[in-house]
Amino acid sequence: MARMRLRDLGITIGTLPTGPHNAITDVPGVWVGHSTVIHDEPQVVRTGITVIVPREEAIREDFAFAGFHSFNGCGEITGVPWLEESGMLSSPIALTNTNHVGLVRDGLSQYARVKYQGRGFWLSVVAETWDGWLNDPGAYHLTHQHVFEAMAAARSGPVAEGNVGGGTGMICHDFKGGIGTASRLVDSESGQYTVGVLVQTNYGERRQLRVDGVPVGREIGPERVPSPWQQPPLSSSIIVVIATDAPLLPMQCRRLAQRATVGLARCGSVGQNTSGDFFVAFATGNHIPVSAGEPVALKMIPNHHLNPFFEAVPEAVEESILNALTAADTMTGFQGHVAYALPLDELQQVMARYRPRP
Amino acid sequence: MARMRLRDLGITIGTLPTGPHNAITDVPGVWVGHSTVIHDEPQVVRTGITVIVPREEAIREDFAFAGFHSFNGCGEITGVPWLEESGMLSSPIALTNTNHVGLVRDGLSQYARVKYQGRGFWLSVVAETWDGWLNDPGAYHLTHQHVFEAMAAARSGPVAEGNVGGGTGMICHDFKGGIGTASRLVDSESGQYTVGVLVQTNYGERRQLRVDGVPVGREIGPERVPSPWQQPPLSSSIIVVIATDAPLLPMQCRRLAQRATVGLARCGSVGQNTSGDFFVAFATGNHIPVSAGEPVALKMIPNHHLNPFFEAVPEAVEESILNALTAADTMTGFQGHVAYALPLDELQQVMARYRPRP
Amino acid sequence: MARMRLRDLGITIGTLPTGPHNAITDVPGVWVGHSTVIHDEPQVVRTGITVIVPREEAIREDFAFAGFHSFNGCGEITGVPWLEESGMLSSPIALTNTNHVGLVRDGLSQYARVKYQGRGFWLSVVAETWDGWLNDPGAYHLTHQHVFEAMAAARSGPVAEGNVGGGTGMICHDFKGGIGTASRLVDSESGQYTVGVLVQTNYGERRQLRVDGVPVGREIGPERVPSPWQQPPLSSSIIVVIATDAPLLPMQCRRLAQRATVGLARCGSVGQNTSGDFFVAFATGNHIPVSAGEPVALKMIPNHHLNPFFEAVPEAVEESILNALTAADTMTGFQGHVAYALPLDELQQVMARYRPRP
Amino acid sequence: MARMRLRDLGITIGTLPTGPHNAITDVPGVWVGHSTVIHDEPQVVRTGITVIVPREEAIREDFAFAGFHSFNGCGEITGVPWLEESGMLSSPIALTNTNHVGLVRDGLSQYARVKYQGRGFWLSVVAETWDGWLNDPGAYHLTHQHVFEAMAAARSGPVAEGNVGGGTGMICHDFKGGIGTASRLVDSESGQYTVGVLVQTNYGERRQLRVDGVPVGREIGPERVPSPWQQPPLSSSIIVVIATDAPLLPMQCRRLAQRATVGLARCGSVGQNTSGDFFVAFATGNHIPVSAGEPVALKMIPNHHLNPFFEAVPEAVEESILNALTAADTMTGFQGHVAYALPLDELQQVMARYRPRP
Repeated sequence: MARMRLRDLGITIGTLPTGPHNAITDVPGVWVGHSTVIHDEPQVVRTGITVIVPREEAIREDFAFAGFHSFNGCGEITGVPWLEESGMLSSPIALTNTNHVGLVRDGLSQYARVKYQGRGFWLSVVAETWDGWLNDPGAYHLTHQHVFEAMAAARSGPVAEGNVGGGTGMICHDFKGGIGTASRLVDSESGQYTVGVLVQTNYGERRQLRVDGVPVGREIGPERVPSPWQQPPLSSSIIVVIATDAPLLPMQCRRLAQRATVGLARCGSVGQNTSGDFFVAFATGNHIPVSAGEPVALKMIPNHHLNPFFEAVPEAVEESILNALTAADTMTGFQGHVAYALPLDELQQVMARYRPRP
Repeated sequence: MARMRLRDLGITIGTLPTGPHNAITDVPGVWVGHSTVIHDEPQVVRTGITVIVPREEAIREDFAFAGFHSFNGCGEITGVPWLEESGMLSSPIALTNTNHVGLVRDGLSQYARVKYQGRGFWLSVVAETWDGWLNDPGAYHLTHQHVFEAMAAARSGPVAEGNVGGGTGMICHDFKGGIGTASRLVDSESGQYTVGVLVQTNYGERRQLRVDGVPVGREIGPERVPSPWQQPPLSSSIIVVIATDAPLLPMQCRRLAQRATVGLARCGSVGQNTSGDFFVAFATGNHIPVSAGEPVALKMIPNHHLNPFFEAVPEAVEESILNALTAADTMTGFQGHVAYALPLDELQQVMARYRPRP
Repeated sequence: MARMRLRDLGITIGTLPTGPHNAITDVPGVWVGHSTVIHDEPQVVRTGITVIVPREEAIREDFAFAGFHSFNGCGEITGVPWLEESGMLSSPIALTNTNHVGLVRDGLSQYARVKYQGRGFWLSVVAETWDGWLNDPGAYHLTHQHVFEAMAAARSGPVAEGNVGGGTGMICHDFKGGIGTASRLVDSESGQYTVGVLVQTNYGERRQLRVDGVPVGREIGPERVPSPWQQPPLSSSIIVVIATDAPLLPMQCRRLAQRATVGLARCGSVGQNTSGDFFVAFATGNHIPVSAGEPVALKMIPNHHLNPFFEAVPEAVEESILNALTAADTMTGFQGHVAYALPLDELQQVMARYRPRP
Repeated sequence: MARMRLRDLGITIGTLPTGPHNAITDVPGVWVGHSTVIHDEPQVVRTGITVIVPREEAIREDFAFAGFHSFNGCGEITGVPWLEESGMLSSPIALTNTNHVGLVRDGLSQYARVKYQGRGFWLSVVAETWDGWLNDPGAYHLTHQHVFEAMAAARSGPVAEGNVGGGTGMICHDFKGGIGTASRLVDSESGQYTVGVLVQTNYGERRQLRVDGVPVGREIGPERVPSPWQQPPLSSSIIVVIATDAPLLPMQCRRLAQRATVGLARCGSVGQNTSGDFFVAFATGNHIPVSAGEPVALKMIPNHHLNPFFEAVPEAVEESILNALTAADTMTGFQGHVAYALPLDELQQVMARYRPRP
C-alpha cells in the first residue's frame, strides 16, 4: 500500500478545517526546503536538513514575533536566548541531526554572508533530533553546502513528508518517522487566520501511540511489526514549529508553543527523560523592521480571543505527527538496522474496530 | 445511581497499579483535610478549603523538595517564588476559592503562630479556582477558623471526593466537578515508590471531555445533560498536587509537575485562556531540616530512572480528574444555578459502545 | 538635622535628569497612596499599605503591559502568574507587611466589588516585606478598610517617603528604611519618556551599603550608629515598582524589571538568601481595553532603542533606595527595638572625604 | 608598563581571600586550556577557543550539578536546555567567537568520539562573544582541530589572561578585553570551599567602567585613550563561568550564576540590548555517575549557609573582569582597527585620587 497522508486514509483529527495544502506553507510567505542525503558509500548516510523560511527570507530584515516552550530539554536548539529576550525570530528555522546542529547554525550565518553581505541570520534557530540508528553517527557528512541547498529548495505549496530533510533517518513510536505537517483555519472573534505546523518526529515507544484516542500502538505491537531495536537508544525527540499569520505578541506565541504539548500528549508522549521536545511558534501578522527608527505600529489579538488558536495547535500537531508516520516508508540503514513503516491497512483496520457501535 | 469512583464503574486508566486507597494519602505521611461550607442563609455559600499536609505537619521543620509548573497562568497561587528559589516546600498546600486565597494564606501563618509560636508556614502554598457560579461571590464567608478546621480534619487514609473542601462549588467540563484523587505504584530501577495526586477541577468545556481516549463529552452533550450556563463565566481552572515518597531533587519534582499537562490533555483540556492551571509536585524521600548545621545528606533517583514516574503522573492525574467527576453530585447554588453531575450509567454505556470489536 | 531627600543633601546619582517630582508619580496617571498605622496600644503597630495605581484606577478596564523579575525569591508576591501569562497588569500594585499580604490581596478585589460591582482587580499584584522587628507580628492589625484608605489616599504629585505606608516598619542596611521614590527622563531615539520607580526597602547589611560607589556602610559602622540587632532576623527584602509611559511590550517591561538588579547591586545588595527581591515594571504607553472586540492597535519601541531605559532604571532604583534611607527617621517599636536613621551629616562628610582630589 | 594582574597594581576587590592562583583552576580538578589563533595572512585572524574542563575531563561520566542565568540574551550558548532540565553539566564549557560557536560545539562531540568512542560531550555548553572588529568575520578560520588543541592544552595552575583563547579579539569598556579569572575562598557554616570564576569580556562602554566603585571610565575617557570606534558595533557580551567544589544542588548553582549580575553591575554594565550576558555555574562537590544504577548519595549545603557564596561570586566576577582588562595588551587587527589596553599607570593614579581623605 503506497504511503499517503492521514486524511487520504479516511482518518481526520479534530474538527477545524485545514488550509489548502494542510501544511505549514498554508501560512502566507512560509517556505519549506529539504536537503536529503542518502547514500551507502563510503559511509551509510541517512540524514539531511529541513528549513522553514518565514516571509520568503525577508525575515532577516523584517522580524516576526515568536515564542518558545520546552516540554523536555534533552536536546539542542540554538537561537533561543535571543528569541526569548527579544520576543522575535530573525532567521529561518532549520532542523537536522544532532551531530550537525552546530554546523547548520554556522552555515546559516555564512549563507547570509554570501547572499546578503553578512546582514542577517545572526542567531539562527536550529534544532536537532538523533538519527544515529539509521545514519552512521561516526562521520560528519553535512557541509555548509547542504544548508545552501535546503535554502535554495525552499518554496511554498505542498511539502514533502516522511523520509526527507532533517527527518530522513528518524524513528517515532518504533515506526519509521520523519517530517510531517498540517494546518488549521482559525475563525476567531478577531478574524480568520491560519495556523500551520511542521514536526520532525523521533520520539516515543510503540505501546504509547494513540490516534484520535485509539490505542493504535497497543494494537499494532512488535509481534505484528517489529521494533527497530530491543532497547531503544538513549536519544529521542520531537521538534515542533508552529506558524501563524495572526498578529500575536511574543507571549502569545509562547502560549501557542506550549499547546504543542497537548497534541503530543494526545499521540501518547509523556516527555521521556532523554527526549528533546522543543516547540517554537512564530507569528507573521506584525512586521518589525530591523532598523526601525521610531516606535513600530502593531496589532495584537486580545488574549480573550485566543481559545480557537489553542484548539488549532493541538489538532495540527497531532495530525502532523501522524502524517510523518503515514508518509514515512520503511528504511534500512547503518549496520543493517531497519525501521518499519506504520502499516496503513492495519491502521485503518484498528481505527474501524474502535469505531463506536451505533 | 449513587456516586462512586471511576474504578467502581469498571473503568480503569492506564496500566500501573494503584496504592491501597488510590489516593494521594497513599504517600506515607501525606494527610488531607477538608473544611466544607454549605448553607443558604444569610447568603448562598458553596465553598471550602482543602489542605494537603506533607509529613504529618512536620513539613514546617523538615522541608520537602518541590517543583512547580504552570500550564496556563490565569489564577492565583501563593508561595511559588520561594518554592522555586529554594526548591522546597515548607508548608501545607491549601486549595480554596478565588476570593479567599489571601485569607487562607494568611490563616496558615496564623495557624502556625498559634500552634507553633510562629515557627513555620511563612510562605505557604495556597491556590484557588473560581466557584462564583454556585457560591455567592459577593460575600466573604471564610475565616481563619476554617483554615484551622481543615488542618484539624487532616488525616491519612481514604479521601472524600467531589463536593468537598475547596472543590465544593466547582464545575468541570460543564458537569459538577470538585476534588478528586488517585495514586500509582512506580516500579523503577531505583526501587518502588508511590505517586499520589489530588486535583481541584474547575476547567473545560463539555465537548472536550475524553475518558481513556473516548470522546465522552461529545456523546453526553448538553442535549442529554444541560450545561450550567449558556456562556461559561470567565474563570475556570485546575490545581494539581502531586506527592511522592521517592527521593527526587527539586528539578525532578518540576519535571513531574510538568507531566500533569499530559494527564490534563488526555481529559481534553487545551489550557484555555482564562484557566489557572497550576501543578505542584513534592517529594518526601529526602529530609531537609530547617536548622541544618552542616551539609545535608540526600539521595537522588538518577534522571535515567525517571520514565516510570513520567508514566505514573499522567495516569494519576487523568484518574483524579475523572474521580472528581464521578464523585461529585448535582448541586444547586447561588441564584438557583444548577451544575449537573456526570451521569454514571450513561458514562458506562458510552464506554461500552467504544469498546473495540473483537 | 531634618530628614530630606538625597538631592537636597547635594548628592546626585547618575547623569539623567529627573522628572518634576523625582517620583514615580511623574509618569502621567500614576498615583501613590499610603495607609500608615502607628500606635502602641493595645499592641505595638508600625505598619501599613502603599498602593501604586496606574491610569488613575482605569487600569481595571484599560490594562498596561507589564513584566516581572525575581532577584531572590524569599518572599510573597501575588498576581504574578497572570501578569506573566498575559503580559499585562490589570490592578493596582500594593505593598504591605508579610502577614497581611493575603488580606490586602483579597481586599483589593473587595474594593473593586464595592466600587465597581466586582469588575476588576481580580488577580491583583500585592507584595510584602517583613516588619516584625518594629511591628508586633503576633497580631493581625490590618483590615480591608486600610486597603480602602490607601486607595482613597492615592494621588499624583509628591510622594511621602520613609516611614509611611507599607514601608512604615522596614529596616534597610541596618538603618531605618521604608518607602523611596525617584524618576528619570529618558531621551531615546523613539522619543522622550519618563521612568519612575518606587521601592519598599527592607534588605541588606550595614557593611554592604554604597552610595554612588562610596562604601558608606563601612564608614558609618555600628560603632558609630548602632545596628537594630546583633543577629538580623531571617527575612529581609526589597520590592521595586517601575513605571513608564513608553509604549513597551511585556518582554521589554520584563527587561526593565531585570535592570533593577543593577541599581540594587550598586547600593551593595548581593541578594541574600532570605531576601524577597521582586521587581515589577509596567508601561502605560499602550492601551489594552478589557473587552476589546478586535485586534488592538499598539506601538512598540524597537529593542535597539532601549539602552537609555536600561540606564534610567538602575539610576532611579539606586536613588529611590537612598531616598528611603535619607527620608526615614529613627523609629522605636515592638519590644523597644530601635532602628536608627542614616545620619545625614555623617553621610555628607563621608561623601566629601571620597571626593576625588583635583 | 608591562601588563599584569589587578592585585599586582595594589588594587584589591572585596574582602574575601583568594585561592593560591586567584584563578578558576583553584577549584580542584578544573582545567583551563586555550587555543589562540593570530595571523595576518591570508586573512587577519584574532580569535581562538578557551575550554574550562571540570573534573579533569571525567565530567563526561561523572556529571556535576550546574545552573544557568541570562542577564541579557543577545548571544548564543549551546547546551543550556539539557543543563537546565537535568540540572547537570556533562561536558567542558568552551568559549569562542560568534561565527564558530556551532563548529566548536560539534567539535567537542567529535573530540569525544575520537577519544572516548563517542561516549560523552553530547550536549556541550559552548558560548560566544563577537570579535568581528579585530578578527575578520568574513572567513571561517577555526576547525575541529583547534578544539582538540584547546582540550590538549587544558591544565590546572595559573591561567593565561587577556588576548588568549576565546578572548583573543575581544573588547571591553572600549579597552582591549579578553579572558580574566579570579577566585575566592569561602568560609561558610558548612565548611570551607573555593569559588572560581573565568570570564570572556566583550561588553560595555567606556564611561560606564567602575573599579571598586571608582568611575575609572569617566576619568580615562576617549580623549585620553581612544575608543576603538566612533559607534560601537552591535554585538557585545560577556560570558561568566563559575566553579565551586562545594556540594551545591542545581538550583543553588543557578542562584550563584544569577549573582554574577552583581559583579558585572559593579563594573558598570547595565546589560545593553545587544549584549549576550550568560552565566553558568557548576559545583563539583557531588558526583553523579552517568550510569548510576540506584539512588545517588549526595550532600547539599543548606540554603541558609549560602550567603558567603553570594558574597564571593560578585567579588570574583568583578576581579575577573578587571584582570582581563589589566592583562590584555593593545591589539591591532582587521582593517587596521586598534583596541587600546587600559593604561595601568593611569588606572593607579585614578584609584589614588579617589582614595578617601583621612
